[in-house]
Amino acid sequence: MHLWNGYHPEMVTDYYQFTMAASYWKEGMEGTATFSLFVRDYPPHRAYFVAAGLESLAAAIQEYRFHPDSLEYLRSLGKFPKGFLDYLARFRFTGSVRALPEGRIFFSQEPLLEVTAPILQGQLLETLALNTLHLETLLASKAARCVAAARGRPLVDFSLRRTQGVDAGLKTARSSYITGFQGTSNVLAGRLYGIPVYGTMAHSYITSFQHEMDAFRAYARVFPDNTVLLLDTYDTLSAAEKAVLLAKELQKQGKALRGVRLDSGDLLHLSQKVKDLFRHHGLDEVAVMASGNLDEYRLEELLSQGACIDAAGIGTRLGVSADAPYLDMAYKLVEYDGRPIVKLSPGKTTWVGRKQVFRSYGSSGVMEEDVLGLAEEEIPGTEPLLLDIFRNGERVRPEESLQDIRRRFQEDWARLPEKYKVLRPTERYPVRISDALRTLQDRVTRARKREEVGDLGGVRSEE
Amino acid sequence: MHLWNGYHPEMVTDYYQFTMAASYWKEGMEGTATFSLFVRDYPPHRAYFVAAGLESLAAAIQEYRFHPDSLEYLRSLGKFPKGFLDYLARFRFTGSVRALPEGRIFFSQEPLLEVTAPILQGQLLETLALNTLHLETLLASKAARCVAAARGRPLVDFSLRRTQGVDAGLKTARSSYITGFQGTSNVLAGRLYGIPVYGTMAHSYITSFQHEMDAFRAYARVFPDNTVLLLDTYDTLSAAEKAVLLAKELQKQGKALRGVRLDSGDLLHLSQKVKDLFRHHGLDEVAVMASGNLDEYRLEELLSQGACIDAAGIGTRLGVSADAPYLDMAYKLVEYDGRPIVKLSPGKTTWVGRKQVFRSYGSSGVMEEDVLGLAEEEIPGTEPLLLDIFRNGERVRPEESLQDIRRRFQEDWARLPEKYKVLRPTERYPVRISDALRTLQDRVTRARKREEVGDLGGVRSEE
Repeated sequence: MHLWNGYHPEMVTDYYQFTMAASYWKEGMEGTATFSLFVRDYPPHRAYFVAAGLESLAAAIQEYRFHPDSLEYLRSLGKFPKGFLDYLARFRFTGSVRALPEGRIFFSQEPLLEVTAPILQGQLLETLALNTLHLETLLASKAARCVAAARGRPLVDFSLRRTQGVDAGLKTARSSYITGFQGTSNVLAGRLYGIPVYGTMAHSYITSFQHEMDAFRAYARVFPDNTVLLLDTYDTLSAAEKAVLLAKELQKQGKALRGVRLDSGDLLHLSQKVKDLFRHHGLDEVAVMASGNLDEYRLEELLSQGACIDAAGIGTRLGVSADAPYLDMAYKLVEYDGRPIVKLSPGKTTWVGRKQVFRSYGSSGVMEEDVLGLAEEEIPGTEPLLLDIFRNGERVRPEESLQDIRRRFQEDWARLPEKYKVLRPTERYPVRISDALRTLQDRVTRARKREEVGDLGGVRSEE
Repeated sequence: MHLWNGYHPEMVTDYYQFTMAASYWKEGMEGTATFSLFVRDYPPHRAYFVAAGLESLAAAIQEYRFHPDSLEYLRSLGKFPKGFLDYLARFRFTGSVRALPEGRIFFSQEPLLEVTAPILQGQLLETLALNTLHLETLLASKAARCVAAARGRPLVDFSLRRTQGVDAGLKTARSSYITGFQGTSNVLAGRLYGIPVYGTMAHSYITSFQHEMDAFRAYARVFPDNTVLLLDTYDTLSAAEKAVLLAKELQKQGKALRGVRLDSGDLLHLSQKVKDLFRHHGLDEVAVMASGNLDEYRLEELLSQGACIDAAGIGTRLGVSADAPYLDMAYKLVEYDGRPIVKLSPGKTTWVGRKQVFRSYGSSGVMEEDVLGLAEEEIPGTEPLLLDIFRNGERVRPEESLQDIRRRFQEDWARLPEKYKVLRPTERYPVRISDALRTLQDRVTRARKREEVGDLGGVRSEE
C-alpha cells in the first residue's frame, strides 16, 4: 500500500545523518554551520549544468518535521541516546538557504546551494538536498543538450516507461520542459505541473485491428483534428501510402492529417522518402515525427545528414541521462562556528567557507567569466548568482511558476557562448577563484595538514 | 506540496494510452488481449536478469481506479469523446496476470509478465507495468553482480544521495537486499521494508570538530558498541593511528572498535596498510570497510589484487546502474480476440501469443535450458516459471515477504551455472523457441507481410 503513498521528507535520508545528529546533540554542538552543494567535475562531453530541483527541495524543507510514525521507527531501532528523539520531535528548520534559482546555467565547483544553520539541521538535510537537486539538475542538463541538437524543432518527452521510477519520470518531464521541450507524454506531469501532454498511438493499437488501415481510420474517427499515425508496425513505406490515403479521406471532411511517426528502421532515409511521398501528394504540411532510441547525439547526426524530421519524441536516453547517469555532486561542510573548514581527501577538493558566484558579461551580454569567491566579497560589475531562499527558517523567495523558470533558462542560454553548447565541447568555461578565497583555502589547508597528518603529536590524551 | 504526496497509479502513464483506450471504447472493441512484457536483449556484460518489482505493480493494480481528481484533469484536456470518462469512472481491472515471482533469474526474450484482459485494460497498464518492473529488475540485476564480486563479504547500499529520485533510492535498497546485500543506509527503506539500516559518520562530522581525534572520541561516547571511524578526511594512515588509539581506549572500557571506513585514495594499498597496523596492535577484529565509487568491476579488481576489505558500501554506480542505466524492456500486444499478433518493425522481434517459460535442470540441479513456448504447451520434466498472480481481477497469489523473495533468489542463484555469473560473460544461456511457437510465429509473420506490405491492394475503400 505504502508504495503509492507519500514519503515524509525527514525519512529520505541516510542513517548516518541521525547518528551524527545524535552526537552533535549529545556534545551540545549548537554552532552555526554552512554546507555547500556543488558538482565536483563534468561528466564526459559536458561543459555546463542547468540548475533545477530547488522548488522540490524548498517544499520539502517547508514541510520538514518529524512525524510520529517516523519517530516511532527511529525509536524501534533502539540505538539513540535518551532525549534525542524528543529533541527531534520539536525540530524545526531555523536556518538560511541561498541557492541558484532554477533554470540558471552554472559550472563545476560552483555552489548550487548553501545551507547555513545550526549544524545538526544542516546535516540532516544533506541526503534530501542531494537527491533532489542531483536528479533534476542531471536531467535538465541532459535535456538542454537535446534541445540544442534539435535546432528549433519541437521535442516531446517520451521517457516515462523506462525512467528510474515515477519520481524520475516526473522530473524528466519537468526538467525538459524548463529547457524548452514542448511537452511530455507523462500524464501525471501534465496534471501536477500543467505541462502540455502529447501522444496518439502505439504498435499495439495498430496490431489490434485486422488491418493497419482499419486502425488508421478508426483513430481518425475519434480524433480527426489530431491524428499522428505510427508508420513502422509492418512496413514504413507501405504505411506511408496508407497515410496519404487517410489524409485525402480527411481532406474530404475538411480535416487535415496532423502527422506521422517513425519509430524504428533507418530514420534518415525513411524520413526523406516519407516526406517526398507527402510532398508528391501536396501534403507538405503533414509533420514527420521521429522517435526510438533518440538522444542529442543521434538527433544531431540525423539532422546533419539531412533527415526530414519536423519533431521528435525523446525517451529513455533522456530520462535516465544514459551517457552520464549521475553527477559527482557533493554537500560539504565548509564552515562551523566561525571556523573555515576543508577536508584533504585526495581528488575531492572542497572550497572553504560561505561562498558566492560572481558572473560577468561581455559588452554583447555574453557570459565572460565567473568568479568563485567568499560570500562577503563584493566584485563590482558582476552579478551574484546565489539568492536568499530561506532566512531564519522562513521562505523569503516565493514559489516560481514553471513558465518563469523556463524563461530564465532561455535568457541564460542566449548568453552562453556557442563553444560550450556543442555536443562535444573542448573548452571549459572560465571559473576563477578569488584571491580572498584562495588565500583562505591555502591557510586552512596548511593548518589542517600540520595538525592532522603525521604522528600523534596533535592528539591530547583522553581526560 | 504535491511533491511529497502520493501518486495515483492511473495517472502514471503515457497520454497515448488514453487516446488508444478512447478509440477502443468508441469502436466497441471489447475482445480479450494478451500483452507480454520482456527484455529484448542484454546490455553489455549481462547474461541474466533478476525479476523484481512485481509486489509494487500488484499493489498498484489492486488500487487501480480513476479518482475524481484524475478524471477532472482528463476532462480539462477537452479531447475525449462524450461518455468515455464516465466509462473510466466505472473502470475496474477484471483481467488476469501471470508473472515470474520476484527473485527469479530470467533471460532475454522471456516474458516476465503477461496481462490477459479486455484490450482497453491491458493497454492502460502498459506504462505503469514497464516503469515498475523495469526499475527494480534493472537494479536487482546490477546488485546481484555486486554481491557476486564481493565473494561473500557483506555489502551495504549507500546510494540514496544520487539515485534518480526517491523512488529509485527505495528500490535500490529493496532490490539489493533481495540479491543478498546486508542492508542499506536508506532510512525510508528501513522503515517501509524492514531492511536493516547502517551508517556512522561523514567527513562533515569529522571536520566539525577541532581535531579528528576529538570527533572519533565523541562518536564513541554516544555509540560505544557500534563505532566505524571514517579515516580519509585528512590523511588515512594518520587517522588509522588515531583509530588504534581509540580502539585501545575502548578496550579499557570493555568495548571494541567495530571498524574503520576508507572512502577515497588508493584503496588497495591503504586497506593493506591499515589492516597491517591493526594486526600489529592485536586489533585483528576491527573491520576495514571500503566505499567511494565502488561497483562490481572495482570490487573484483581490488579483491583480486589482494585488498584487505572486510565489507563495502556501494553507492551511486549501483543506484543508477551506471554501466547499464536502462534495459530494453517492452510490453507488446501478442494476442487479440483469439488472433495471434506480431509486428514487423526491424530489430524489434516480438514472439506471438500467450507464452510460458519452461526451465529444465541437469542432474546436479543446475539450470540447463529454458524453452520459450506457448502457454498451453506441456513440456514434461520442465518447470513452468510464470505463475498466476491475478485471475478475473482478483489477486490469487498473496503478497510475499522480502525474506521469502531473498530466499528464492538464493535458490536460483545456486542453480545458475558459473559461466553466466562472471562480470564479463562470453556465453548466453540457451533459450530455445518451442516448435509450436516458431511455427505460429512464421505463419502469422508471413500473413502480415502478405497483407500489409507493398501496394494498397489490402485496403478496402472507406464506406
